Amino acid sequence: MPQSMENFVSENQERFLAELCDYVRIPSVSTLPEHAPDMLRAAEFAAQAMRGAGLENVEVIPTSRHPLVYADWMHAPGKPTVLCYGHYDVQPVDPVEEWRTPPFEPTLVNGSLYARGSADDKGQSYTHIKAVEALRAVNGTLPLNVKFLLEGEEEIGGESISKYVPANRDKLRADVALVSDTSMYAEGMPSLCTGLRGLIYLEVEAWGPSRDLHSGNYGGAAPNAVYGLIELLAKAKNRRGEIQIPGIYDDVEPPSPAEKQSWDNLPFDEKEFLKKEVGAKALTGEPGYSVLERIWARPTFEVHGIAGGFTGAGAKTVIPAKATAKVSFRLVAKQDPEKVIAAFREFVRKKTPKGIRTEVRVLSAAPAVVVNPDHPAIRAAAEAFQLVFGKPTVFIRSGGSIPIVGEFARHLGIPTVLMGFGLPDDGLHGPNEKFLLDHFYKGILTVARFFQQYGQ
Amino acid sequence: MPQSMENFVSENQERFLAELCDYVRIPSVSTLPEHAPDMLRAAEFAAQAMRGAGLENVEVIPTSRHPLVYADWMHAPGKPTVLCYGHYDVQPVDPVEEWRTPPFEPTLVNGSLYARGSADDKGQSYTHIKAVEALRAVNGTLPLNVKFLLEGEEEIGGESISKYVPANRDKLRADVALVSDTSMYAEGMPSLCTGLRGLIYLEVEAWGPSRDLHSGNYGGAAPNAVYGLIELLAKAKNRRGEIQIPGIYDDVEPPSPAEKQSWDNLPFDEKEFLKKEVGAKALTGEPGYSVLERIWARPTFEVHGIAGGFTGAGAKTVIPAKATAKVSFRLVAKQDPEKVIAAFREFVRKKTPKGIRTEVRVLSAAPAVVVNPDHPAIRAAAEAFQLVFGKPTVFIRSGGSIPIVGEFARHLGIPTVLMGFGLPDDGLHGPNEKFLLDHFYKGILTVARFFQQYGQ
Repeated sequence: MPQSMENFVSENQERFLAELCDYVRIPSVSTLPEHAPDMLRAAEFAAQAMRGAGLENVEVIPTSRHPLVYADWMHAPGKPTVLCYGHYDVQPVDPVEEWRTPPFEPTLVNGSLYARGSADDKGQSYTHIKAVEALRAVNGTLPLNVKFLLEGEEEIGGESISKYVPANRDKLRADVALVSDTSMYAEGMPSLCTGLRGLIYLEVEAWGPSRDLHSGNYGGAAPNAVYGLIELLAKAKNRRGEIQIPGIYDDVEPPSPAEKQSWDNLPFDEKEFLKKEVGAKALTGEPGYSVLERIWARPTFEVHGIAGGFTGAGAKTVIPAKATAKVSFRLVAKQDPEKVIAAFREFVRKKTPKGIRTEVRVLSAAPAVVVNPDHPAIRAAAEAFQLVFGKPTVFIRSGGSIPIVGEFARHLGIPTVLMGFGLPDDGLHGPNEKFLLDHFYKGILTVARFFQQYGQ
Repeated sequence: MPQSMENFVSENQERFLAELCDYVRIPSVSTLPEHAPDMLRAAEFAAQAMRGAGLENVEVIPTSRHPLVYADWMHAPGKPTVLCYGHYDVQPVDPVEEWRTPPFEPTLVNGSLYARGSADDKGQSYTHIKAVEALRAVNGTLPLNVKFLLEGEEEIGGESISKYVPANRDKLRADVALVSDTSMYAEGMPSLCTGLRGLIYLEVEAWGPSRDLHSGNYGGAAPNAVYGLIELLAKAKNRRGEIQIPGIYDDVEPPSPAEKQSWDNLPFDEKEFLKKEVGAKALTGEPGYSVLERIWARPTFEVHGIAGGFTGAGAKTVIPAKATAKVSFRLVAKQDPEKVIAAFREFVRKKTPKGIRTEVRVLSAAPAVVVNPDHPAIRAAAEAFQLVFGKPTVFIRSGGSIPIVGEFARHLGIPTVLMGFGLPDDGLHGPNEKFLLDHFYKGILTVARFFQQYGQ
């Protein structure tokens, strides 16, 4: 059967790719209200793909914002149940002028499919659906029970699924969740992710004068909202990149010595990472920690965007009345989001410069997640990965955040297998997002093989 | 004759207002390329008004950007010549949603005309043209010679007039320049401005990674262009508002003890200023200086606008690749713009955070101007002001910048009478710009009276 599974996927590659292209053509940008109809189209597309794979009880479930998609196949009594999660929403495409190909016109270049959502997460989560299809096509059945739950709000805080999961504990009952929304450590290197950072996303708004003022007539005496916000945010980190918000590092749990040792053994070329992936003059971050530690096991404070005052062409000499920034914290194990939010509010309250008013708005908050590598499902996943890719599976973490993993643990009491097929340079959230097709096809096989191993 | 001048202006108020309304309806925003046709319309409007007032040799002079308008009346041999300067271009109107009335639909509220350009500078400079018209209507002649020169690039650095003045020294030869582009100290209080700050306007651009990066996958190791720019700009001032760029205060000339004393005697209510004009929580600026000193006689560093990263609705977790800020210095007497620019470039070079690349672009640069209050033209202007407004004229400065005043001194060897009719709360450069009509009409009389006093 392994042979025939591989043959099936190999023979159907072109069709699978064509389907994925249709899926990523739908501009399902969850944060932009004008894309609401596309959100519905993407949900319906996923639902139709599930029906086509032989999944049952397929539902597009309305929510107060973007629909959820549910399906299941429960005909393997006595076998475990895997809850397959994914998301059909994508990030905005700006700066769109930096895309080399249109973001919603999938384009094949050097074996990778370039499109918004190709990796994050349409392409990755589509492997689950195709694995079900392949197993049923080859064996006529599945080796275990599966439930599918897709959401359309992953990129905007996941509010609807956060309400749905605790309200539908019985319906969603499972032994383990499967999420393919992370990266492999390197091309062809099977990798299971055992940790995710949490995320708090906030907006900070600052007000100075009641209206934009002439900087000649008032400059020297009137507060400047843009400068006030700049002064405030600059105090959040020192020049070494250490966060200066009191208490922020109190609860941080470092990785175990064994885990840290295994990270140190991973191939990592800092120069290549700087040159090929980051493309800046130098790396930054806290001294005393390796790059992988800084990304996987240390909290961060970032400013994602700032706007205020005059930013058009030419010159305008105003003292701006208002400025806004989007900021976030990435959290690591043992950090409590509520505690961090409170510390940030207190920091803003204390450090807002004279003459400026500020307001902090929390858009979303989720804690970090750490998975036990000895869980039977994780072991089965590691074996499946190794069988398909022909190399030992390494255990890594991701600096990203998948809040639903924490919710599955909290409300369903289950761990999550983080089986990602992306690559670190996939351009997630930025221009020129891509997904390596070899990993797409091998991903389908790996998911199928995982179902078999875990079903035994 | 004073009676009949006043009668003439009084009888023609409605027509003068209607003409001004037509003038400010033209959206002559010099910085925005799409308004190029409006710039030409505004120049033609001014030229037509000059012809109507009896001025001669009226020319709309093409330049590499927006035209200049020239006119003269030279039939008073043996009498001095006044060069009347003004500008027909205006600032952009954003944030347009904060205007209570449409910026280019002049609206009369409580005796003030609300419109972009009503005070800065269409309404103010229109008093010169109407004074010529009134004097000729009442007396059939003018008491001295006048030349008019209007530009359309005052708000964007004045490049064309800067080239035109030194190339046309003979044509523009005069004894004094007259500029009405400043504010009176308070309503009904005749004020002559004896000092203007200079202005250096710059853009600072910062680059971090070569593309926007996912803040989960890279946060903690990759530089952030927005945060790098924030860190850099925050270093430009300390928490007391003192500029931290080495050498910046070296050449600053303080006001004379007598001048400082006269400022201290001006009515100034700091609470009213804060509440009614600034509208912030508190005033800011260097300690040890009065508010008027901070605005009139101290250099400033301002950030007029900043943009970078994701600033749309909702959340996007990028580490931005690029950020830009518009900044300026206001300069005071004896500061050399080139020296300040060099100091800022050095500051940026030294203080740019690790991993960030920066570039500084100079958009314009002009030194401060100080005028001698004992010049005969200034004395004539002070008398004219007092006669029309019925109160002694006070000598003040303006924190704003009118670069052409420095050019007149340098290339034509003449001082400038800064005879402004605006008010401090006119909303220049911001929303809801206005011009008090009583000052518009009295301004016409004051200019006419100044011509008479100075012509004697």
